Order: sequence, then C-alpha cells, then structure tokens
Amino acid sequence: MTSNSRYAVGVDLGGTFIKAGVVDAQGRITPSSRISVDTGCEKGMQWIVASIADAAERAVEASGLAWDDVSGVGLGSPGVFDFDNGILIFAPNLICLNGQPLARLVKKELAYDTSVYLENDANCAGLGEQWAGIGRGAKNLVLFTLGTGIGGGVVLDGKLWHGSRGVGAELGHQVLFADGVKCGCGNRGCLEAYASATATVRRFHEAVKTGKPSALADKARAGAKVTSKMIHEAAVRGDVLSRDILEETGRFLGIAVVNMLNIVDPEIVCFSGGMTGAGDMLLNAIKDEAAKRACGPGLKGVSIVFGTLGNDAGLIGAAGCVFSKSGISA
Amino acid sequence: MTSNSRYAVGVDLGGTFIKAGVVDAQGRITPSSRISVDTGCEKGMQWIVASIADAAERAVEASGLAWDDVSGVGLGSPGVFDFDNGILIFAPNLICLNGQPLARLVKKELAYDTSVYLENDANCAGLGEQWAGIGRGAKNLVLFTLGTGIGGGVVLDGKLWHGSRGVGAELGHQVLFADGVKCGCGNRGCLEAYASATATVRRFHEAVKTGKPSALADKARAGAKVTSKMIHEAAVRGDVLSRDILEETGRFLGIAVVNMLNIVDPEIVCFSGGMTGAGDMLLNAIKDEAAKRACGPGLKGVSIVFGTLGNDAGLIGAAGCVFSKSGISA
Repeated sequence: MTSNSRYAVGVDLGGTFIKAGVVDAQGRITPSSRISVDTGCEKGMQWIVASIADAAERAVEASGLAWDDVSGVGLGSPGVFDFDNGILIFAPNLICLNGQPLARLVKKELAYDTSVYLENDANCAGLGEQWAGIGRGAKNLVLFTLGTGIGGGVVLDGKLWHGSRGVGAELGHQVLFADGVKCGCGNRGCLEAYASATATVRRFHEAVKTGKPSALADKARAGAKVTSKMIHEAAVRGDVLSRDILEETGRFLGIAVVNMLNIVDPEIVCFSGGMTGAGDMLLNAIKDEAAKRACGPGLKGVSIVFGTLGNDAGLIGAAGCVFSKSGISA
Repeated sequence: MTSNSRYAVGVDLGGTFIKAGVVDAQGRITPSSRISVDTGCEKGMQWIVASIADAAERAVEASGLAWDDVSGVGLGSPGVFDFDNGILIFAPNLICLNGQPLARLVKKELAYDTSVYLENDANCAGLGEQWAGIGRGAKNLVLFTLGTGIGGGVVLDGKLWHGSRGVGAELGHQVLFADGVKCGCGNRGCLEAYASATATVRRFHEAVKTGKPSALADKARAGAKVTSKMIHEAAVRGDVLSRDILEETGRFLGIAVVNMLNIVDPEIVCFSGGMTGAGDMLLNAIKDEAAKRACGPGLKGVSIVFGTLGNDAGLIGAAGCVFSKSGISA
C-alpha cells in the first residue's frame, strides 16, 4: 500500500450477499473486479469476517491490480456503530457481529497489511452519490435509502455526518404522525413505518381490508405474497388502488424532504434503494408534495432526485470512505 | 479596531426593542454597557438602521471602552437571509427591512469603521448558549427558541449551520402531524403550529370549547386574554386543564427532540425563549416524551436542558458571531 494509491476496495456487506469491487479515485468500479459471495449469516462471525476478506482479496486479484495500487478496504455494513470505540453495536440482520470490532477483525483477516474503514451502509450510499453519482460537486446532500426499512446518509460540507454519538442521519426515524403506528425502533409514527417497502405493502393490505377493489388484491387472495414491486407493476397496469398506495408513499417521502430542507437545507435530496424502481410515478409524487409544503425559497436551488449509481452506491461509497478516511478505521 | 480586540458589540434586533451590549471574549456582557431602545418599526428602514448604530455606539460609550478595543458589531435579527448576497430576505415583524442589505446599511451608518456581522436571531441564541452558556464546550448543539413562533439554531463542530441556501435550522417547521393544522409557513402540522406559545393558547381554547372545565377559562370568558404564561400560572395553582395543555406542549417538543437526535445527533438539545418560564413542568414533560421515543442509545450522552443565558442568549451570540466571523459580514 502506498499513500498515493489510485484505487480502493469497496465492500458492501448485506444480510444475503457480500459484494466487492475495486474502485478508482473517480469512483468508477473496475468492471473485471466485481465479486459477489453469500454472506452465510448462519455460519457465524468468523465465517463472515473471512468471507469479507476473501471477497476483497478476490476483487483485487480479478482487477489485475496489485495490493500496492490499493489504499485500503472500505466496508459498508448495516447497523449502528460506536465510532469512538470501533464497535458494531447492533445490526438486526447480522446478529453474530453485534458488539464486535468488525474493522479490526477484517484487517486481521486480510492477507495484506492495509487500512480498513467501516461505515454504515446508508452513509456509504450517501457518500457514493455525492462523490461519484448524481451529487457530484454538491457540498451538502441528504440521501434516503428506500428498502425494507428507510436509512439515511447526510453529507455536510463534503463529509459524512455522524453526530455526537454516531447515531445521526437515521432519516427513517423522523416522526410524521406523532400518534401514528408503532415503529420497529420503539418510536411512533416514523417515516419508515409509513413509507418503506414493508410499510407500503402494509398500507396496501389495510386499504384492501376496507373493501377497496384491486386486481392485485384478487391475486393476493389467491395466495400471492404482495411486494412493493408488485404494487408498482399493478399501478403501471392501471390498478387504481396500487397507484394510490404508491403515490401516498411518495407523499410521505415528500413531507420528509421538506423536513430535510427546513432542518439541513442541502442542495440535493437523493433517493436510493429498491423502491426507486417505481420510477417517475414515485418521484413525481415526492416532488409534488414537497412543492406544496416547502416554505421560504420553496424548491429553488434544490434537486430532488433518484441516485444514479443504483445498487453500486454503497460499494462505491465504501471505497470513497478509504479516500476520505471516513468511518471506523483499523 | 484591532484584529486581536478582546470585545465585540452584540445587538439583538426585535420587533419592539433593540438591545445592545459589549461582550468580552468569554461571552460576558460588560454590565454598564447594556442599552435598550425602541425599534420604532413604523418609522421605517432608515430609522431602524440609525437606531441599531446608535445603540451599538451608546453601548461602547457606556462600557467605558474605546472602539479600538472592539472587533466589530454582531447583529441578530429575525428573518430569513440570503447569505451569498448579504440580503435580509424576509422578516415578518420588520417588513420595512425586507430585501435590504442590512449589514451594509448598519456598517455605513456607524460613526466608526468596524466590521458588522448579521445573523438570524435564533442562530445567535444557539451560538450564544454553545459559546458561553449551558453548551460551553459542546461540539454539536441544537437550540429551539420557544416564543410566538419556534425558531432554531444548530451548531455543528462548533460552527453555526446555515445549509446550502441559508434556510436550514428552521426547527419549528418539522412536521409532527402530516395532516395537521395549517402552519403560517404554508406547510401543515409543523411543530410551531402545535407547541409555540401561540399554539399552546390555541389548544387551550380548543379544549375549553369541548367543555373541559378550567378556572382560567372562566377568567377568559370574563374578558381576559389568555397567554401561555397565564396557562403556566394556572397550572401551578392546580388548574388541571392548564397543566394538561402545557404538558402536551412538552410532549410535542419531546417528539421534536427525538427527531433531532435521529437526524442531527447533538450532545445538547437546548430550549430558550419566553416559554421556558414554565420551568420544570415543561422540561420534565419534554424529557419524559423523549425518553419514551428515543431509540438506539436512548438519551445516553444527551442533555435536554433550558439555556442559562436567558434573554441575553441572542445578544451574546450576536457578539459571538464577530469572534467566529459568522453570518453576513460587511
């Protein structure tokens, strides 16, 4: 490893897959370097740590580069971190890693002596989009990851924001309905409990129970498990209830956008993650609601967008942590 | 003026009074320097600008110091600013100043050639408390000003946060009830529309209309205009409805505190402004609700407090802007 290396390894640790790739200083993944392996959660901590190191090593090998060309390994992981003590405190889908010094473990496991940077996966996606995606050149960017839950990444003055205790940027846990439904975090009425993929499906079922007709509901009654993707597809095919539900998701997200404008005031609010597959139908609903609610300068000087890095945002941002020395380092 | 001066003038521009004082580098007001003059809104822009300059000059004179001892004048003003172009865009109670380059006008008016820094008044209060009040030594502090409206000040890494467009930290305009009452800002369900002094009085009247008994309601029917201070006083005297209403205000503020923990994650959340006169009855309600809703590390490592600078927070923070070169400078 040299200090002026032009590459970093990005690793995206998910509950199902570990993805790795070698990323250059402009945030581009070296195509030949892409690696994906099963996480194998059930096999325990040592297995996962070995798999992360293995994926990183295979990515470098596949890239045709040498480790001397690489500045370090950036690892994006779900969960809450103790940045001061270098501990992964809690990640619901990776229970065996909870309480572990994940960055140090991975560094020890790697066959090469290189730096490891550990960062929250949604933060990585935020940094990725700000560094190499739709937010290139922006100083301040807020990103929501839309999936089973809603994560957040906040870049301020070009740097990831962690907060005093390392638990900031949990943007899915802003309250939209003070007396609303219970959220998994223990709070009530959080954005995540209304606008995540899971919550979108829940609202669909709730609406069906009130007797609203839907072709998708007929399918569900025949045994199909409804997903947010199916709701979007049904909406495209003209299913009115599906469209209403999806646009309501957009409405909730639009309210959260305005909260972000009023609190953080970034120049870009970006959405990433699986639900962005719903495309303009979702994005237009977000923008419409935000336009209705934004005060002062309104939406002037703000872009509300989907990310351009797709599923690579986390991996690229993890590599970006190496270049910007962000996160827990070992 | 010398660059290593040990004093700055702080000016707090309100709709009714202009207050000024000379502040030392530790954030203490020189007692003899305190000046208060009528704003005289109805007399127009030139009058107000002259009054600001006059108050600053009289404060220095009264302090017994010379202008050579003073680094500059910090001016805290309500309103929204265009920081890039140095313009006070909009302040509802100072209409004649809207669209004006207030810092430049004051600099021109001063008999002494010194720097002028213009900053939002709630931001000043936040900086004041972080610099010289309850938040001394904190890196990250969030402050709510509780008055007719609810303002906000956010200090990150020891510096005031303005956002990309200068409209960040408007903490009163986070949505607590997505489909709630219309807010003055054009949005719906904002914290300000539920927990400001004005909103507290409104909720009191709404509760009375539903038939709930209250000694204060009897007074109101006899012609007294209810204020949030009267609601607090009635609560202290044992009026159940008044207590419920005030504690509900605390509950709403507690929800906003948790939003701040989840988004910004400061080590201190501070309340300032007139309504803090309600003391522990309000503060305990805020803390109780925050404790119920905080996730992850909960309230560990966070202080939820009232400011210690009282009505001086804005003036002291305005002077702090001179030392930290914050805000619009002229």
